[in-house]
Amino acid sequence: MTLEGVLADRDAWKAERCSIKRTLDVVGTRSAVLLMREAYYGTTRFDDFADRVGITDAVASARLRELVDAGLLERRPYQEPGKRTRHEYVLTDAGADLLPVLLALWQWGDQHLVGEEGPPLLLRHSGCGAPLAVQVRCEEGHDVPLDEVSVKSPRSR
Amino acid sequence: MTLEGVLADRDAWKAERCSIKRTLDVVGTRSAVLLMREAYYGTTRFDDFADRVGITDAVASARLRELVDAGLLERRPYQEPGKRTRHEYVLTDAGADLLPVLLALWQWGDQHLVGEEGPPLLLRHSGCGAPLAVQVRCEEGHDVPLDEVSVKSPRSR
Repeated sequence: MTLEGVLADRDAWKAERCSIKRTLDVVGTRSAVLLMREAYYGTTRFDDFADRVGITDAVASARLRELVDAGLLERRPYQEPGKRTRHEYVLTDAGADLLPVLLALWQWGDQHLVGEEGPPLLLRHSGCGAPLAVQVRCEEGHDVPLDEVSVKSPRSR
Repeated sequence: MTLEGVLADRDAWKAERCSIKRTLDVVGTRSAVLLMREAYYGTTRFDDFADRVGITDAVASARLRELVDAGLLERRPYQEPGKRTRHEYVLTDAGADLLPVLLALWQWGDQHLVGEEGPPLLLRHSGCGAPLAVQVRCEEGHDVPLDEVSVKSPRSR
């Protein structure tokens, strides 16, 4: 990674408004990320979220509320015949936009933390059946490795 | 996202060996992610890590040790003339492989958390100057949105 222009001297600036940091304010806990995984898997009900992530009801409640407040999930009422109204949690477009984050975490785990037993689950493109990858690319279609990432200030030329 | 075959019934399985969860065991804290950001920016010295991430020496020490133990950073001795030996922290290949995670967090923040002032920093490909994006793609080169992601068990056909 190359810091360009006014950024080159790291002592002269701090990452105050960092977009990574801001995103972590929303999904910076392990349980928030795993709840989003569950939402991708199709989980919508409170008990299923808590059970599949393996967290207490109190933690699930707090985290789901934060994800709703941040606009990643929408809380919707539903009612089964003869039962009281309950709520389900449904992915929003902003929640779906988090897909590269979750699949990038998944990919790193598959690359570096899986032993001889191999990855527990396989990711495929349903359209053609080919394996998936999360890639850093530029608008010209080049794959961009870390040493070709350039960071610049919007105020510099 | 579609859960295929034996996975379709979510009640019948749990994500015990989940690669997302395993990666979060390594970089599942806000400070670990921000330390990795700093390593990408070229920070190598303990004081600079703690200062730029805005964490105490104790937290920085614990997190850096975890990142070294997990193989994302390497701890190397260095010595300036007339001073005692100190250590610097240098990215490993496994650490560099985390790039899609950090840039995906960055991208989501730029998309959803930046107001009228615009993003604080711009990511470009140093080779051609074009803006970067983190993309989910398959090996056949298709862009893959969430509803075309298929998850299957390696034990199923």
